[in-house]
Amino acid sequence: MAFVDNKLAGLVAATFTPFTSQGEINLTEIGPYINYLVEKQGVKNIFVNGTTGESMSLSVAERKILADEWCGKARGKMDQVIVHVGCMNLKESQELARHAAQIGASGIAVIAPSFYKPSTADVLRTFLKEIAAVAPTLPFYYYHLPAVTGVNIPVREVLQNIEELIPSFSGVKFSSSDLMDFGQCVSHSPPHWSLLYGVDEQLLAALALGAHGAVGSTYNYVGRHINNLISAFNSGDLIEARSIQFKLQELLSHAFKLGFDVGVNKQLMVELSGLPLGPPRLPVRPCPLPQAQEIAQKYHNFVLHI
Amino acid sequence: MAFVDNKLAGLVAATFTPFTSQGEINLTEIGPYINYLVEKQGVKNIFVNGTTGESMSLSVAERKILADEWCGKARGKMDQVIVHVGCMNLKESQELARHAAQIGASGIAVIAPSFYKPSTADVLRTFLKEIAAVAPTLPFYYYHLPAVTGVNIPVREVLQNIEELIPSFSGVKFSSSDLMDFGQCVSHSPPHWSLLYGVDEQLLAALALGAHGAVGSTYNYVGRHINNLISAFNSGDLIEARSIQFKLQELLSHAFKLGFDVGVNKQLMVELSGLPLGPPRLPVRPCPLPQAQEIAQKYHNFVLHI
Amino acid sequence: MAFVDNKLAGLVAATFTPFTSQGEINLTEIGPYINYLVEKQGVKNIFVNGTTGESMSLSVAERKILADEWCGKARGKMDQVIVHVGCMNLKESQELARHAAQIGASGIAVIAPSFYKPSTADVLRTFLKEIAAVAPTLPFYYYHLPAVTGVNIPVREVLQNIEELIPSFSGVKFSSSDLMDFGQCVSHSPPHWSLLYGVDEQLLAALALGAHGAVGSTYNYVGRHINNLISAFNSGDLIEARSIQFKLQELLSHAFKLGFDVGVNKQLMVELSGLPLGPPRLPVRPCPLPQAQEIAQKYHNFVLHI
Amino acid sequence: MAFVDNKLAGLVAATFTPFTSQGEINLTEIGPYINYLVEKQGVKNIFVNGTTGESMSLSVAERKILADEWCGKARGKMDQVIVHVGCMNLKESQELARHAAQIGASGIAVIAPSFYKPSTADVLRTFLKEIAAVAPTLPFYYYHLPAVTGVNIPVREVLQNIEELIPSFSGVKFSSSDLMDFGQCVSHSPPHWSLLYGVDEQLLAALALGAHGAVGSTYNYVGRHINNLISAFNSGDLIEARSIQFKLQELLSHAFKLGFDVGVNKQLMVELSGLPLGPPRLPVRPCPLPQAQEIAQKYHNFVLHI
Repeated sequence: MAFVDNKLAGLVAATFTPFTSQGEINLTEIGPYINYLVEKQGVKNIFVNGTTGESMSLSVAERKILADEWCGKARGKMDQVIVHVGCMNLKESQELARHAAQIGASGIAVIAPSFYKPSTADVLRTFLKEIAAVAPTLPFYYYHLPAVTGVNIPVREVLQNIEELIPSFSGVKFSSSDLMDFGQCVSHSPPHWSLLYGVDEQLLAALALGAHGAVGSTYNYVGRHINNLISAFNSGDLIEARSIQFKLQELLSHAFKLGFDVGVNKQLMVELSGLPLGPPRLPVRPCPLPQAQEIAQKYHNFVLHI
Repeated sequence: MAFVDNKLAGLVAATFTPFTSQGEINLTEIGPYINYLVEKQGVKNIFVNGTTGESMSLSVAERKILADEWCGKARGKMDQVIVHVGCMNLKESQELARHAAQIGASGIAVIAPSFYKPSTADVLRTFLKEIAAVAPTLPFYYYHLPAVTGVNIPVREVLQNIEELIPSFSGVKFSSSDLMDFGQCVSHSPPHWSLLYGVDEQLLAALALGAHGAVGSTYNYVGRHINNLISAFNSGDLIEARSIQFKLQELLSHAFKLGFDVGVNKQLMVELSGLPLGPPRLPVRPCPLPQAQEIAQKYHNFVLHI
Repeated sequence: MAFVDNKLAGLVAATFTPFTSQGEINLTEIGPYINYLVEKQGVKNIFVNGTTGESMSLSVAERKILADEWCGKARGKMDQVIVHVGCMNLKESQELARHAAQIGASGIAVIAPSFYKPSTADVLRTFLKEIAAVAPTLPFYYYHLPAVTGVNIPVREVLQNIEELIPSFSGVKFSSSDLMDFGQCVSHSPPHWSLLYGVDEQLLAALALGAHGAVGSTYNYVGRHINNLISAFNSGDLIEARSIQFKLQELLSHAFKLGFDVGVNKQLMVELSGLPLGPPRLPVRPCPLPQAQEIAQKYHNFVLHI
Repeated sequence: MAFVDNKLAGLVAATFTPFTSQGEINLTEIGPYINYLVEKQGVKNIFVNGTTGESMSLSVAERKILADEWCGKARGKMDQVIVHVGCMNLKESQELARHAAQIGASGIAVIAPSFYKPSTADVLRTFLKEIAAVAPTLPFYYYHLPAVTGVNIPVREVLQNIEELIPSFSGVKFSSSDLMDFGQCVSHSPPHWSLLYGVDEQLLAALALGAHGAVGSTYNYVGRHINNLISAFNSGDLIEARSIQFKLQELLSHAFKLGFDVGVNKQLMVELSGLPLGPPRLPVRPCPLPQAQEIAQKYHNFVLHI
């Protein structure tokens, strides 16, 4: 099985989860959020309930309600909605995968379990298979985020013969700076897979190695700039592509110095988009307002002057 | 609030979760398991749904059913049943904590969330408080396991003024080899807290620094030997205590060389106890039989000849 | 001071140190080694007494003799000889730096001290300054190799105002996969600095971000292929550049699986070049012959068919 | 060969290297330093040119001069002077080992090389053997400091059959909190070896497991207190031993919070001993005076009131 005619490519925003000021999920902001991405950022794909979306701080019930709302509101406006269904255990991931199929998600993604860490590529592949198997009609993506999960199995090993186990396998969200591993994924992939890069601050490097697109949190607010980066790259204008990439590096380098976790990132999105997305949930700390505003100021200095 | 008259001390077995051969939870083995611990190992406290119990591979629903069964079958036989209610998100931990209170657990324990890692002692303490607050009548234990969670905040900092936030705070399961941190927990704790050590292979070191007891997976099958170690230590016979500790080190050193994860550990328990506890769940790999049998053989060589 | 007319660019081979079969330095192979690089690999710059050259396993006296020989034999054949003079202490590094100036080295490089690790960019910069100051006429390069040194200070911070302290500062050998840091070095560097990338298996990524050249051990035996990669990149032929990069990744991925330390790497060079470079020194293990031969076989399969 | 009649035991101070204010080695303070240790701290063994002594920041020539002076001035006053001769390369370590034998050192110690890290116990053992072999009459100690060297090979594996390779082998300076490994070293050692523990803040734990003594930097200024700890332990008074250990933990915990590297430690020694030991060398940062004085103040509050 291969979903060739619907290959995921270009920019994919990893969405934040809107909360009320009391920390409950806030469905009313999802529609405006989607409009903002499409209209202001030119971003037409989303990756929901992922790391940026604080999925691991949500209950299973909440994840379903959110996925449903994202899919519903995106219909007719977005190209694809990928629902992340990974969690620490198989049963609940399977439940979320089945649900994603029911609500018409464009695909599902699963991160490696990180409390009990799979010890080999084989075990990890089998774990992924058990989830993919309950939603066989949905394109399946593996989400590689070793800095957070501690699961450092090279993706090229995970991909070995994976279509035999997972016929719906369709690609990888690759969030690591190991570009040898990424390059090998590219060089060994069939053409219908999507290899999406997930380290926003060095996307240009991955494009040089053949990335088909990118998934990241910063595309929520620098999407249109990075769309320009990709266009410049595709037309052979490396100087322009580099110039945009360097501006994002400047912004993020500054943000990292101030401490840049999901909470700060979310508040930055609030500052830049005007969308009231609420605070993060514990154990992520709410972002002190001046911190986000200082980064937003940098954003206006650097990124907008492209 | 202080639960002085019921201070947790001595050995606490971190229980394995019995599964059927198909990987479903198997309640029928819980009664025999408890009898085995009491009768064969002299162990009268258990820590259920923890790391050894594969809690993070269980659904919330399964964790409740298991906790209920452990509490029910332990009644009248065991001194204390501590139910671990930690998971990645607050809502489900709170649900589990409320449930633990309803079923008559002796106490609850919570591990630090490990996907989004708390960045300061203050954030972690607040996270713990939100869970403790929904089961205020239950003694509350913090479970420190930095090698797995990646949360390395010194426990002494987590404990600072913790009773102001968590009146039911009662102690720590301290599973780290940082004995300066452990020593400071001991020296700064009020007398009604239990500081339980969780690195089985160096328990004697923690006893020297004032540990009140121990929680660990090996006490499932070397409980009676380690009870002897504690008795020897308490009576001032360091030579004998050391001799027993060295034998456990010998066994575990051998096991570590062969790869000693929860799956191997569980199969070793099967070999030594005769209880049919089933395989582990993915992503933990089932243990090849010869591997567990080789460790069991070492057990018979080393530990039994005490 | 700026050495503009002599900017280091293109490929730089990090040379192995030839030893006799008894493990003593073997000067007689240095001339043939240089001829091989120039004639067979098209490589005209070398980086001597670096990590590949087992510098830290050499005495100060040996490092001087070797540097002298490399400079002498390279004269008239090579463009530049960069002598690495870093070691654990300032005094001996200064002695080596003074010596490098006397023997006509083209430049010197210094790695961060790794036993006592500098705690800030400021301390590291001051350490580097003390060495550069004794050889002020030589272009000075900072050698960044965090995976080995454990010194993870972002290079962009080390470079801040560095010309005020080190007027001879001329560039960086950047051996890390953190391409945000690398990109920021590129975007903030004056035009006369050389930013040379040192992770051979992902050079193409660094070229996309503006690398001026590359220093690495594999250029000893894949230099002519990587020269083609650079030419393809410069002429806008990313498809060809990628194809060559993927072949090197294929080779190295295989080598890493077999264990690829300096000893194996050296033996591979022996197999591929025919130069008798001898075994490595302890604590590097001599490479079992079949291991190097298996990698050499892969080399012939993959790389030569470009 | 076994040096039974001269087994190293009790406290060993890892000495600081006295520098002038210009950073040159300062021999004139070595005599007074030794008097201070003997008279004020009751410490009669020293470990010179180790990590505390900034050995890796000294040239080979300086290390010899220092070793000579320590041995000379200690004669008749101290029991044993262990000279650390480890460095990154074999040749210079051998030179230092030969020199140590000539000047009448009581023994030599060698740390694992940390730039090129030995990949197996076998390689490390062979490396150590090459050094021990040039000074066969001197008791030889392996110095295990994995947090700094990154060499994590279990010591129990290094010790396997080591006397066959190194007949002069006499013990270990074990500076790690892995007390399973330490326990196994104790349980498998012949009686004439000395297993000396090197994590000062948890010495009591190691004593419980059978440590024969301790080597550490804090014994320069808390030697007499820790002598009391050892006496209390030996006489079965765990309460008193614990109380002293907890006070040292209190002091060091505070110091760690303020940043406690060799530079701060040295300045603390200056404050407490009155000996003008000078600043540390780069890359260790000189300690801001208030920082050392604040720790010294804590010392007076906590440790002296024993």
